[in-house]
Amino acid sequence: MTCPKFGRLPKHIGVIPDGNRRWAVNNGLAKQDGYQKGLDPGMMLYEMCVELGIPELTFYGFTQDNTKRPAVQKKAFQQACVDAVKMLANRDASLLVVGDYSSPLFPKELLEFKQRKTFGRDLIKINFLVNYGWKWDLSNFINAVEKNSFKKTRNINEHIASSDISRIDLIVRWGGRRRLSGFLPVQSIYSDFYIIDDLWPDFKKNHFYEALQWYETQDITLGG
Amino acid sequence: MTCPKFGRLPKHIGVIPDGNRRWAVNNGLAKQDGYQKGLDPGMMLYEMCVELGIPELTFYGFTQDNTKRPAVQKKAFQQACVDAVKMLANRDASLLVVGDYSSPLFPKELLEFKQRKTFGRDLIKINFLVNYGWKWDLSNFINAVEKNSFKKTRNINEHIASSDISRIDLIVRWGGRRRLSGFLPVQSIYSDFYIIDDLWPDFKKNHFYEALQWYETQDITLGG
Repeated sequence: MTCPKFGRLPKHIGVIPDGNRRWAVNNGLAKQDGYQKGLDPGMMLYEMCVELGIPELTFYGFTQDNTKRPAVQKKAFQQACVDAVKMLANRDASLLVVGDYSSPLFPKELLEFKQRKTFGRDLIKINFLVNYGWKWDLSNFINAVEKNSFKKTRNINEHIASSDISRIDLIVRWGGRRRLSGFLPVQSIYSDFYIIDDLWPDFKKNHFYEALQWYETQDITLGG
Repeated sequence: MTCPKFGRLPKHIGVIPDGNRRWAVNNGLAKQDGYQKGLDPGMMLYEMCVELGIPELTFYGFTQDNTKRPAVQKKAFQQACVDAVKMLANRDASLLVVGDYSSPLFPKELLEFKQRKTFGRDLIKINFLVNYGWKWDLSNFINAVEKNSFKKTRNINEHIASSDISRIDLIVRWGGRRRLSGFLPVQSIYSDFYIIDDLWPDFKKNHFYEALQWYETQDITLGG
């Protein structure tokens, strides 16, 4: 399918790439072997967004909740996140990784992305949530209150740990589940959700075009 | 339709009763006349939840964002919220109203529900969000930090303004839009969403049963 024409595109898309373990089981593999199958879809989505001129894209890597899973799965999704960031670090994007850096569960190889790093022609901002937790994110503004810097603006968005990630217009979730699962609660306040029943490793370009076509038909009110 | 049998029911349901203004326009009325048409559906839903034994139900009344709308609409939705709470105050429920009480936009008649009040046989907990704002809700924990009570537990849920409202299992939104629009971001972290395309004043019992039947098929992982 060639790229359709869009009248109105989201400025920032959040991606919840769910279903890797279910895909592995369906295909006779061990659960943890599903994560590597999510890398190519991620690169494909990156390329589609660049082609369309989408300015910002956020991937839900793994969460602090997820790290309660068996060690072999934990290792596999940590490695998949490291691989994904490294693949994108050779392209035309700026990369930021957001998550609890202080924990041993945060992969050391990604510490250099605590601050946004720019590569190539810097065509798109990409954010990765790695060892992310919504409580960790929101709790950050305790520091701001303690330092008394909160009072100056009283703007929550500026003081959460993910403050460099902007408001999300469209969230696309693969794997059929209709929930946020802790994905950036502040940036998701007004987001439109689109659910794709297929599992993330079964990514097709058409999934993404359908989501964008649906998004075009939604009005934006921000509660007004 | 008689009530189907359910194997697994949500303990707490959030309701986003959207589409009153669109319903009014579709039916040749002024936009503000739609809100009163939302009262009967609310009572019907209350009765269905009592019949099923659902322990907690939260209605999205109006938000601080909504109060930017024309004065005539503002008056109408404020009145509809007052009427809804009064109708339920004669039944078998405990009622709590949560929102920015300090603002003149908060209806005075509802101030007595700042603390939960119990009526009749107290069969269900009902929460109403009235002049609610997600920023108002989250900002409340600044007070906790300033009073140094936060450090004792570091549990965000206990310190937000809506801390008396528990985690939501299922959110049902009428009116076709697939977004949270600022609805209780902390309690919605793991909620399943079900969207009904019909507008809220066109509420049918079947809408709700469909949502519950769908909910039964979802697994609960809480990210694990």
